[in-house]
Amino acid sequence: MLKFNETKQIEDIKGALALRPQVEKMVDEVWEKGFDSIYYLGIGGTYASAMQVVTYINGKSNLPVYVQHAAEYYTTGNRRLTKDSIVILSSVTGTTQEVVKAVEEIKTVGATLIGFIDAKGSILAEKCDYVVTYPAPGTEQIKFFMLADRLMKNNGEFDEYEEYYQELEEHLPVGLVEAEKKADDFGLKFAQAHRHDDMHYFIGAGNQWGAVYSYAMCYWEEQSWLRSKSIHAAEFLHGTLEIVEETTAVTLFIGEDEQRPLSERVANLLPRICANYTIIDSKDYPVAGISEKYRGRVLSFLLMHCVTQRIDAHVEQLNCHPLDIRRYYRQFDY
Amino acid sequence: MLKFNETKQIEDIKGALALRPQVEKMVDEVWEKGFDSIYYLGIGGTYASAMQVVTYINGKSNLPVYVQHAAEYYTTGNRRLTKDSIVILSSVTGTTQEVVKAVEEIKTVGATLIGFIDAKGSILAEKCDYVVTYPAPGTEQIKFFMLADRLMKNNGEFDEYEEYYQELEEHLPVGLVEAEKKADDFGLKFAQAHRHDDMHYFIGAGNQWGAVYSYAMCYWEEQSWLRSKSIHAAEFLHGTLEIVEETTAVTLFIGEDEQRPLSERVANLLPRICANYTIIDSKDYPVAGISEKYRGRVLSFLLMHCVTQRIDAHVEQLNCHPLDIRRYYRQFDY
Repeated sequence: MLKFNETKQIEDIKGALALRPQVEKMVDEVWEKGFDSIYYLGIGGTYASAMQVVTYINGKSNLPVYVQHAAEYYTTGNRRLTKDSIVILSSVTGTTQEVVKAVEEIKTVGATLIGFIDAKGSILAEKCDYVVTYPAPGTEQIKFFMLADRLMKNNGEFDEYEEYYQELEEHLPVGLVEAEKKADDFGLKFAQAHRHDDMHYFIGAGNQWGAVYSYAMCYWEEQSWLRSKSIHAAEFLHGTLEIVEETTAVTLFIGEDEQRPLSERVANLLPRICANYTIIDSKDYPVAGISEKYRGRVLSFLLMHCVTQRIDAHVEQLNCHPLDIRRYYRQFDY
Repeated sequence: MLKFNETKQIEDIKGALALRPQVEKMVDEVWEKGFDSIYYLGIGGTYASAMQVVTYINGKSNLPVYVQHAAEYYTTGNRRLTKDSIVILSSVTGTTQEVVKAVEEIKTVGATLIGFIDAKGSILAEKCDYVVTYPAPGTEQIKFFMLADRLMKNNGEFDEYEEYYQELEEHLPVGLVEAEKKADDFGLKFAQAHRHDDMHYFIGAGNQWGAVYSYAMCYWEEQSWLRSKSIHAAEFLHGTLEIVEETTAVTLFIGEDEQRPLSERVANLLPRICANYTIIDSKDYPVAGISEKYRGRVLSFLLMHCVTQRIDAHVEQLNCHPLDIRRYYRQFDY
């Protein structure tokens, strides 16, 4: 299978889940000290991940947890982000310019910074109060959600925490590679059908909204140089639907959390107005050993990511376009 | 001038500003009672307006004010929206399905509902605790910002409140029609150049972000049936920039609030990677009588709206496409 290293992918997920004692120690320490509010800080792909985890928490918790956009922070500011706040961030390079600027200002405020920073010794790693270093692609959401789960457990909102993580540890690593194998045929067919689209619309809701936002922008636009637009399922019905016709390329991601009905509503409409739509439903990817009641947490997103990884691998090969080249980003100053 | 009734537009703005005693009375009453947090509730266009005003407040205030998406509310929920919260909404028809559903749930929670509802006796008008009825198109932001300004005044964050509104009352109504006249030539040229674009990208930041979000979705897509994508200026640099080439149609809105530097950064980049870009800067539209220091508030958005109104009027005529027809919205059930 193209661009697929089963052993490594299993090890990557196992390793991410094995970060739990470290994450628990951090969370329990800041919990003990107390806090006024919690911010997931990001820009671009990490902003998308922040939206995913905050939507996840909102559905289950009364904790004051918010998304904070890095560039909006150092321009507009946020006076409710105080010395008693906790700020959580993630970075592969540890050098993302806007995040560095935001973190520098947050340090003057005195909030506690928790960073999942993949590059040891990088500027962001140095500035954070707590740092977790685990450079495995595709594990950002596991880290963000794991931290969130510990917060909710400490807040008395996740009694099944231990059971849930036991299931993930036992079944997630293999479950995900099995899902990816299952998705490969679909990924090839989708890539063949859409790799020259003049425009592709991606729709999602719940914790899949951040996923489609990121998929359209960080994968199709940034990596594959293909035009795409992401739109929240609820927002699609308030404008964007009017430009959909028979031939418009539309893909709907359906997840398994509280906002599933919003995506289902779009699924019901699409066949009546479009003949070029695709529905990717995480429900179509069963994972042995993981309880039904837990699928709407991080799993449904991770399954969607398995599917899109297959699409991207085939688009890369068919379009003869290496996903790691950039026209402009970090090519020159602007 | 096409689709331009100077007298009516002046009267509309005057009338919106004349709502102030009514808005002040409402705000002062809820202020007196106390509250834990404030939510601007919306979907589609009203969600965009909510984003504008909350960004505005974040830059100037420590009040706990948030955007709450209507459909996310009745699916995911928000446990921090309580009986002690204030919820502000706006609706032209007073019947927007998702907002009605959200409001019904909010009523069971017991929060105080303030509605700017244009249709008297509509279901939303009946459900709100406070209702302001003033059906004049293009005044939603004035209403939302006016309420915000009173909150900030009461919170000791807007000492110049009276002076500011005196300037608006004296100079805004005429200032806006003068700006619109000034923008008409540009609007025609822009419409001629872009009315058949296969895709158009709109970029903005600060309180212009909600404006470009809404302009792309509620005007180009929904009303003109033209493909468009909105992207925040800070996010544009984290993905979308890679699909921009010489011929890509890109329009950047530059406002005058704290996030202006984020748009200026894009303005510096665009000429190097694109030959089909347009910059609309609210600074190019002076308004006599309104102090420089107040331009970044509601004015810079209203000026942008003057410019886009001219574009839309010409697109409508040139494309022979009435802006008030819909393919799907409210045409059948879905």
